[in-house]
Amino acid sequence: MSIKRFSFGKIIDCNSVVKEIEKENGQVPYFLEKDSVLSFKLEKEDLVYGLGENVRGINKRGWIFESYCSDDPNHAQDKKSLYGAHNFIIIHGENRSFGVFIDTPSKVKFDIGYSEIDTLSIEVEENNYDLYIIEGTNLNEISKEFRELIGKSYVPPKWAFGYQQSRWSYATEKEVREIGRKFREKNIPIDCIYLDIDYMEKFKNFTINYESFPNFDQMVKDMKEDGIRLIPIIDAGCKIENGYDVYEEGIKKGYYCLDKEGNPFVAAVWPGKVHFPDFLNSEARLWFGKKYKFLVDKGIDGFWNDMNEPAIFYSEEGLNKAYKIVEESKNKNLDIYSFFALKDAFMGLSNSSSDYNSFYHNMDGKIIKHNDVHNLFGHNMTRAAAEGLDSIDKDKRFLLFSRASSIGMHRYGGIWTGDNTSLWEHLEMNVKMMPNLNMCGYLYTGADTGGFGGNCTPDLMTRWFQFSIFTPLFRNHSAMGTRNQEPFAFGEKSEKILKNLIEFRYGLVPYIYSEYMKAVINNDIMFKPLSFEYNDVTSREIEDQILMGDSLMLTPIIKQNGRGRYVYLPEDMLMIRAKGLNDISYKVFSKGHHYINVELEEFIFFVRKDKMILLGESAKNVQSIENKELNIIAFVEEKAIYELYNDDGISKDYLNGIFDKLRIEIIKGKEEFNINVDGNIKDKKLNITIISKGSKDVKKVYYI
Amino acid sequence: MSIKRFSFGKIIDCNSVVKEIEKENGQVPYFLEKDSVLSFKLEKEDLVYGLGENVRGINKRGWIFESYCSDDPNHAQDKKSLYGAHNFIIIHGENRSFGVFIDTPSKVKFDIGYSEIDTLSIEVEENNYDLYIIEGTNLNEISKEFRELIGKSYVPPKWAFGYQQSRWSYATEKEVREIGRKFREKNIPIDCIYLDIDYMEKFKNFTINYESFPNFDQMVKDMKEDGIRLIPIIDAGCKIENGYDVYEEGIKKGYYCLDKEGNPFVAAVWPGKVHFPDFLNSEARLWFGKKYKFLVDKGIDGFWNDMNEPAIFYSEEGLNKAYKIVEESKNKNLDIYSFFALKDAFMGLSNSSSDYNSFYHNMDGKIIKHNDVHNLFGHNMTRAAAEGLDSIDKDKRFLLFSRASSIGMHRYGGIWTGDNTSLWEHLEMNVKMMPNLNMCGYLYTGADTGGFGGNCTPDLMTRWFQFSIFTPLFRNHSAMGTRNQEPFAFGEKSEKILKNLIEFRYGLVPYIYSEYMKAVINNDIMFKPLSFEYNDVTSREIEDQILMGDSLMLTPIIKQNGRGRYVYLPEDMLMIRAKGLNDISYKVFSKGHHYINVELEEFIFFVRKDKMILLGESAKNVQSIENKELNIIAFVEEKAIYELYNDDGISKDYLNGIFDKLRIEIIKGKEEFNINVDGNIKDKKLNITIISKGSKDVKKVYYI
Repeated sequence: MSIKRFSFGKIIDCNSVVKEIEKENGQVPYFLEKDSVLSFKLEKEDLVYGLGENVRGINKRGWIFESYCSDDPNHAQDKKSLYGAHNFIIIHGENRSFGVFIDTPSKVKFDIGYSEIDTLSIEVEENNYDLYIIEGTNLNEISKEFRELIGKSYVPPKWAFGYQQSRWSYATEKEVREIGRKFREKNIPIDCIYLDIDYMEKFKNFTINYESFPNFDQMVKDMKEDGIRLIPIIDAGCKIENGYDVYEEGIKKGYYCLDKEGNPFVAAVWPGKVHFPDFLNSEARLWFGKKYKFLVDKGIDGFWNDMNEPAIFYSEEGLNKAYKIVEESKNKNLDIYSFFALKDAFMGLSNSSSDYNSFYHNMDGKIIKHNDVHNLFGHNMTRAAAEGLDSIDKDKRFLLFSRASSIGMHRYGGIWTGDNTSLWEHLEMNVKMMPNLNMCGYLYTGADTGGFGGNCTPDLMTRWFQFSIFTPLFRNHSAMGTRNQEPFAFGEKSEKILKNLIEFRYGLVPYIYSEYMKAVINNDIMFKPLSFEYNDVTSREIEDQILMGDSLMLTPIIKQNGRGRYVYLPEDMLMIRAKGLNDISYKVFSKGHHYINVELEEFIFFVRKDKMILLGESAKNVQSIENKELNIIAFVEEKAIYELYNDDGISKDYLNGIFDKLRIEIIKGKEEFNINVDGNIKDKKLNITIISKGSKDVKKVYYI
Repeated sequence: MSIKRFSFGKIIDCNSVVKEIEKENGQVPYFLEKDSVLSFKLEKEDLVYGLGENVRGINKRGWIFESYCSDDPNHAQDKKSLYGAHNFIIIHGENRSFGVFIDTPSKVKFDIGYSEIDTLSIEVEENNYDLYIIEGTNLNEISKEFRELIGKSYVPPKWAFGYQQSRWSYATEKEVREIGRKFREKNIPIDCIYLDIDYMEKFKNFTINYESFPNFDQMVKDMKEDGIRLIPIIDAGCKIENGYDVYEEGIKKGYYCLDKEGNPFVAAVWPGKVHFPDFLNSEARLWFGKKYKFLVDKGIDGFWNDMNEPAIFYSEEGLNKAYKIVEESKNKNLDIYSFFALKDAFMGLSNSSSDYNSFYHNMDGKIIKHNDVHNLFGHNMTRAAAEGLDSIDKDKRFLLFSRASSIGMHRYGGIWTGDNTSLWEHLEMNVKMMPNLNMCGYLYTGADTGGFGGNCTPDLMTRWFQFSIFTPLFRNHSAMGTRNQEPFAFGEKSEKILKNLIEFRYGLVPYIYSEYMKAVINNDIMFKPLSFEYNDVTSREIEDQILMGDSLMLTPIIKQNGRGRYVYLPEDMLMIRAKGLNDISYKVFSKGHHYINVELEEFIFFVRKDKMILLGESAKNVQSIENKELNIIAFVEEKAIYELYNDDGISKDYLNGIFDKLRIEIIKGKEEFNINVDGNIKDKKLNITIISKGSKDVKKVYYI
């Protein structure tokens, strides 16, 4: 195990690492350096993991990626960048594996067999960066070592593992209350409802539109009493409007990003013209972070930070350029090329590089062009929020996640995977993205289940739910103008299926939460490619099956009209087939390839050999789960051990080692199974089912 | 077997059927009719095939489709319409299967389990249509019966089964000659090079840009002598320009579509402002068709008709509306909703329904609004071309294919599957679209191999080639501004692989051509879902394997970094593994599921039980193939028969039964295999390899 750091150019602190590694002076191993491009000859067997939030497979070979936080809701396989910029990769060969982390604040190109099929090349735009080479004997070790370098992942409150319902927008108090009422009336568990942009007065951060939300504070209180938390959105830009305190204060104190003349830079986002708080400035960050108190004081316990790539709809300059092209086009006969130029003038207005090159940050005294530190913006907005919330209530965990991110931000909050679409491909992308996000430190994450843009179908919703019930962030979100996506929006038959799935999620909470917390504490990853645990050739190749936590292998159906799928088992495993918490069956499958039928209303997953899964109960929300009984299903050929973690779910006491544990050990003896249980989790009935090849199933009840 | 016709509203002749079916007066079977919507309760096991050119799977369940010819190069799964409008579906249940054809000239909605998961509903916008219900005892019968109704498919010249190279654009004579030279220099077989829009003078149909192509006629001649045909593009719109003969003639004769004031309708496409020839008017059609002579006289033997949905970049009216929104937006603070409205004004300029509602056709005396007959436009443009070419040389086959189409146009030409993108998903879509296109009569078809838009990667190109070598139209096409896609554009290693694949294609020509011609003559389909031949449950479900012709099952790799795939065999089959014509191996696999490794440079396909495949030789182009030897690989458990069809490849004599045949019969006897060969194909050496389970391979040489 070793980490080596190499430094190039002038280093800007990206707030990504928490460990000081001494700088090496020699050659960078593995890579050839030429004209500021690092290149590496890929062998046929090499897999390339990492890059966190990005398109395509778990193995990133065969495309050119750019780390550059980008707002792009219509992303297909041909995009190079998504919302996050996560410059960590692992090259996993037959004989050697190592990690590479490029610590730099702006664009990095990773050409992974795009230009030349066997060449990986890395090009850092500004050529100022730290390069870390991380070596280890296996993938888990390399990943862990990297995570130790970048620091422990964010921990949300336990209720953030419940089901979350969102839409752009539940636009009025009446609508929000109505959505909550429907869930309760239909006995569908739920923990959060989201407030998208319309809760604000003219899209101004830290304001309330009291016309649509006349009793905002009371609504927050009433719903929280009913077990539903409201999660408002926060924009990266602050509206320019006289009399708006946040605008005026920011101007007065000089907390906004500046243009080249030294005036606050004007971009337009939701409210029209805005200034961007200079999140790279520590004073501005402190100031903005404290603003969250406005909502915390109203009873709000969680936030999502949006548009913080930052997305820019347009700038005055860009718009005027487009208007000019309109003037020049008038009364002309526009042919294909001139017409496309006109159209592109409007298509290209948003998130243009010329805008990113025309504003500046004051990084505590140092003036830096935005483009040169682009990837740190969303990161530092969320850092501002986290530090602000910490200053408001240092003992309490808040729910906090962001759209844009870079490595290091995982210490402050989670991310959702940005504005996706109701496509089967995007469900597939969600599955494949999870391990790479985890490797980059993002454990609290998940996709907009069902897809944000586009119209979802009942079958896609069902299959997506069947995957999202396993992801830490399980949020259903959809855009204005698209079909409604609540679990009751697709007719009775689908409602029943989706309700069963949400209930199943609540039953999984003990396991998910336990695995999550252990992954944070131990710098492990929760979602792993098979190759992290199995060495055979096929395990290196499989991308539509992933390991989840210590015990499970997930095998979601991600194809429309798929009523079954192929499953590869690198060892004997126990298949669980379920429709809901009350409809579960299991069967042992042997190592090898299988085709397994899986009807729409059911899903399958696997318990690995000598592992076990715990299922609790459903309840109206996470807080109401009592779990007086836990159902344990174990597949034991020799010995299975599970360590269940639990804590109060809301404080930070776990940091001081204050949490509960339950250690369950099941050993296959000659005649029977020996079960040893200990730990400080008490007052529960454990219903243990032990399955073993060649033995009859054993059912035991244990009281602790 | 039966076809029933039901009629609703006022029928417009769509030129789709060639058989008169008497109208029924009773209730439409199967369907419930309510408020002009036909609905059908889908059973769990029902598959829904058809809809020709469209997104998603072979089985169309789970989406809402609209038959409405649409220009949309960025099509993902969430599109409802592509370039063709093919209103034929087959519902394939466990106990009953039937076909439904909606014969109508404008929009039809097929909601196939989108709104309600178990309901298929059909809504015809104009409510004027013939509905055909086609019943039969199996899928092949239903498909064949429908094809008999709509008439025999177009037959291209045999050279159109060679490799074809295209790009928007090889913009100069020098460039076109250079591309040809490179193919010859590198000994890569090729039959056609395409001329995209830049060969024309200011994008005017039936003109030559002599600045870029100073010796156009000589170039056509020289290249044809070198075995390479040039295939120019033809636009659906004619430039408005004084002195341009096509423009002036059309105006004089009144052959253009009119606006509501009775003036020629002005739309803008490649050349800027154009008029659309009124292809629905028989005189205009005749006139336009004869214009192809301009190019035929220069030695041109084939054409692609483009933009004939018709695509409209903008209309004066639309552009002025957008300009007005610009005026109103100026000096305003545009928030999210007003900014999106501005952007949408430009995004929505092209192919707007308001434009389609503002021009008119004169259908031989009857004035009809374009939107009401929208889907007939491209169809009739290609009919114009076909009839024109027929009048120029009635004995010769021309290559002719179109972007837009509706049912009936398959008698005049082929289609390519429109402007796609360099995405693995689009390769997958290509595979799944083939059977549905075939069911709708389109046999001469294929996708832009490698993808038109976007940047292709060497591995995608390779895997796409491995599929396209089996499709009748095998064209590599790419857009301006994207990475070059010629087989030599991806480096030496890829060039070698791609060259081998093109050579393999030429080796397949005898089989492909034979299967093509038999499919045309017998109204069969060439690309079939497995369920057309196998009745088991899994064969009904598999979508990434398709049958091709009488003998083969294709199992392409359509996943990036896939170094193998699962294959389902409904019966024992013989796997062929190949890198090129000179690197072929085979192995029998048993009925059932298999995981098979397939490295990037190789591909696999299967010979069905008691079937055989013929492989010829490669040559610089189709015409140069001598095939003095044919290699036959047969998998014989009882008896295999193959009937090879061949003809002169250029005349229409086959219509009079003038063609060659070779019948090869291999019977497994007790001791040995008996081979009977007869027919009028002579002077060949047949190298026959017979594989049979439990026997040693038998190799025999036959001289005929």
